[in-house]
Amino acid sequence: IESRLPTVGTTIFTVMSRLAQECGAINLSQGFPDFNAEDVLFERVAHWMRAGFNQYAPLAGCLPLREAIVRKVEGLYGTRYDVEHEVTVTAGATQALFTAVSALVHAGDEVIVFEPVYDSYGPAIELAGGTVIRMQLRAPDYRPDWVSVAAAIGPRTRMIMINSPHNPTATVWSADDLAQLAALTRNTGIVVVSDEVYEHIVFDGAVHQSCAAHPELAARSIVVSSFGKTYHITGWKVGYVVAPRELMAEFRKVHQFNVFTVNTPVQLALADYMADAGRHLQLSAFYQAKRDYFRAGLSGARFELLPSGGTYFQLARYGAISDQPDGVFCDWLTREAGVAAIPVSAFFADGRDEGVIRFCFAKNESTLAAACERLQKLR
Amino acid sequence: IESRLPTVGTTIFTVMSRLAQECGAINLSQGFPDFNAEDVLFERVAHWMRAGFNQYAPLAGCLPLREAIVRKVEGLYGTRYDVEHEVTVTAGATQALFTAVSALVHAGDEVIVFEPVYDSYGPAIELAGGTVIRMQLRAPDYRPDWVSVAAAIGPRTRMIMINSPHNPTATVWSADDLAQLAALTRNTGIVVVSDEVYEHIVFDGAVHQSCAAHPELAARSIVVSSFGKTYHITGWKVGYVVAPRELMAEFRKVHQFNVFTVNTPVQLALADYMADAGRHLQLSAFYQAKRDYFRAGLSGARFELLPSGGTYFQLARYGAISDQPDGVFCDWLTREAGVAAIPVSAFFADGRDEGVIRFCFAKNESTLAAACERLQKLR
Ligand SMILES: CSCCC(=O)C(=O)O
Ligand SMILES: CSCCC(=O)C(=O)O
Repeated sequence: IESRLPTVGTTIFTVMSRLAQECGAINLSQGFPDFNAEDVLFERVAHWMRAGFNQYAPLAGCLPLREAIVRKVEGLYGTRYDVEHEVTVTAGATQALFTAVSALVHAGDEVIVFEPVYDSYGPAIELAGGTVIRMQLRAPDYRPDWVSVAAAIGPRTRMIMINSPHNPTATVWSADDLAQLAALTRNTGIVVVSDEVYEHIVFDGAVHQSCAAHPELAARSIVVSSFGKTYHITGWKVGYVVAPRELMAEFRKVHQFNVFTVNTPVQLALADYMADAGRHLQLSAFYQAKRDYFRAGLSGARFELLPSGGTYFQLARYGAISDQPDGVFCDWLTREAGVAAIPVSAFFADGRDEGVIRFCFAKNESTLAAACERLQKLR
Repeated sequence: IESRLPTVGTTIFTVMSRLAQECGAINLSQGFPDFNAEDVLFERVAHWMRAGFNQYAPLAGCLPLREAIVRKVEGLYGTRYDVEHEVTVTAGATQALFTAVSALVHAGDEVIVFEPVYDSYGPAIELAGGTVIRMQLRAPDYRPDWVSVAAAIGPRTRMIMINSPHNPTATVWSADDLAQLAALTRNTGIVVVSDEVYEHIVFDGAVHQSCAAHPELAARSIVVSSFGKTYHITGWKVGYVVAPRELMAEFRKVHQFNVFTVNTPVQLALADYMADAGRHLQLSAFYQAKRDYFRAGLSGARFELLPSGGTYFQLARYGAISDQPDGVFCDWLTREAGVAAIPVSAFFADGRDEGVIRFCFAKNESTLAAACERLQKLR
């Protein structure tokens, strides 16, 4: 068998979670909460199942959920997407990204991404026959360098994939970043795919800059979000995209032949749950408290903590503890120190190793406290 | 925007279901039951949600479900797939087919399919840069012509996609068909993708011929099945694939970057539900009774009913009622007669119209009776 992805192995998140489990380590690697979502959400799923809503949803998603999404997006970002033609429920944000790339990237096209980059972007682009153009975000502030982006844009540039709040660097792009992106893509035909799954997790009073809030960018963007991150249900695999009609028409052509549609009772339950519009607004404060708790727990430890401005991730340099490569260090940390983390080199195509690892702090305080106690011991 | 699928519109199943709903017609078009699944299944989902199993499943699927699948497949078909490396839970069978094609078809490869063909196969192949080679199944018996298949196989043939029991023709392939397929693909490197979502719905004592039951074919097949069809939960979008390790390794490379994984509490509930191993074995009798009820209800009507040997579909010729193209006839039938069906031309790339439409009889007897009453009136 000739592989279509010869250099790809198993995603680092599965590798590290499995290792954590095997070792009985505290798992701060893969990004997911260790606390549960609310019973009221489960009751709604149970309700719709019992009521017999267990057959195919419309391919765009159940109408009440599409309405709730459109209402939320308009309320937060001011853009009114059309319920019928401009919103689609997806089987998670990853499926949305994969589908957007499959639908819009032609063989020979170039797609610009920002490294460190989530590990699904590159393979999705390569499967579509596209070429990945990698812009570098540099520690410790990981700001995009718009001069380099301008130089990278050419006639074959079909798409730019962005992600703010950014996984794994926990940086949040500014209004100026979006203005630069808008200027650089003006009159080009370039499509922006904006991965905003951490849109509701921004700290210290910063404001999430959504492409949906930028009228010019909104007109050429596919904006992707996730219920998993917002409602503590990463394992339900439900997300959504909003996009202008012409882009969404192409997206749906592929979506319908990929997953076709998404779990019906779960969609209807999420629509009910979204009726309490305030929920997602409390998320930033909720996770900021966890960030602060985790950082305080590591004060005096020999990790150098980088800034965390959003997402539920915390980057840390471990150079004072070890000079091993980050993959080796994470393996050791899991097995010997009993705490699993993600080596940030996994987010670089060339495996670039800057001695930085990523912790997930979407955990109960007791979990974070236990992890900090172990991490404090490393000298 | 330059479309990657310029000739593709909205899938016929969505078009007809929407029209049925708008017109208040009895919907015998899209294939799904109008009765509910069992409460015990819902209770298991509720249990796992409340118990806090709402975060990412392993990318291959939850272990208890993989174990249950492997047990079922071995019990029915005799092949023991490895739980760790040879079974993957998918977001429905359509996602499994799309992912298999994305993972294994290279630009310039040829993929053989049998027409009439489920509408997702062709676009999946085209997106991968492959060429669709269409073998014709001819009414009324729709048998594959293996002489033509032999002639179609060449050095660029990468894959053959089969589907038995077959949607939309309701035919069931024989052991001889699989023997022919095995002989033609021997020593070729061709991968078989076997869509067996109706594996538990075969009538009149016939036996489903699974590629998993044919040791030679099993070694080069990706076998796809669906919980939706078997447990009356088409809207939950859960299926699975079994395949030998080398094929599965390629499948998972793409799967992990497409949907990554599938709803966790649903997977765990299905594993519990499968512990009652007898359930799927009653499905053939259950649907055979519906087929017989529906056919009896149409006796004396001016439709010519073709044989239905499996699936929950019934083909019918309407030439005695109308000489309109099948799409026009289905539109009229929905609007004016109040019964929605699928025009079989939608399963042909060139829209070939043989005056045949497809009814779905996965309905309560009261629904079928009401539909038959309306259909009997057409003279
Ligand atoms: C696909 S599992 C990964 C979850 C996640 O987004 C992360 O850990 O970065
Ligand atoms: C993707 S919805 C279609 C359901 C089905 O398999 C059919 O009606 O043929």
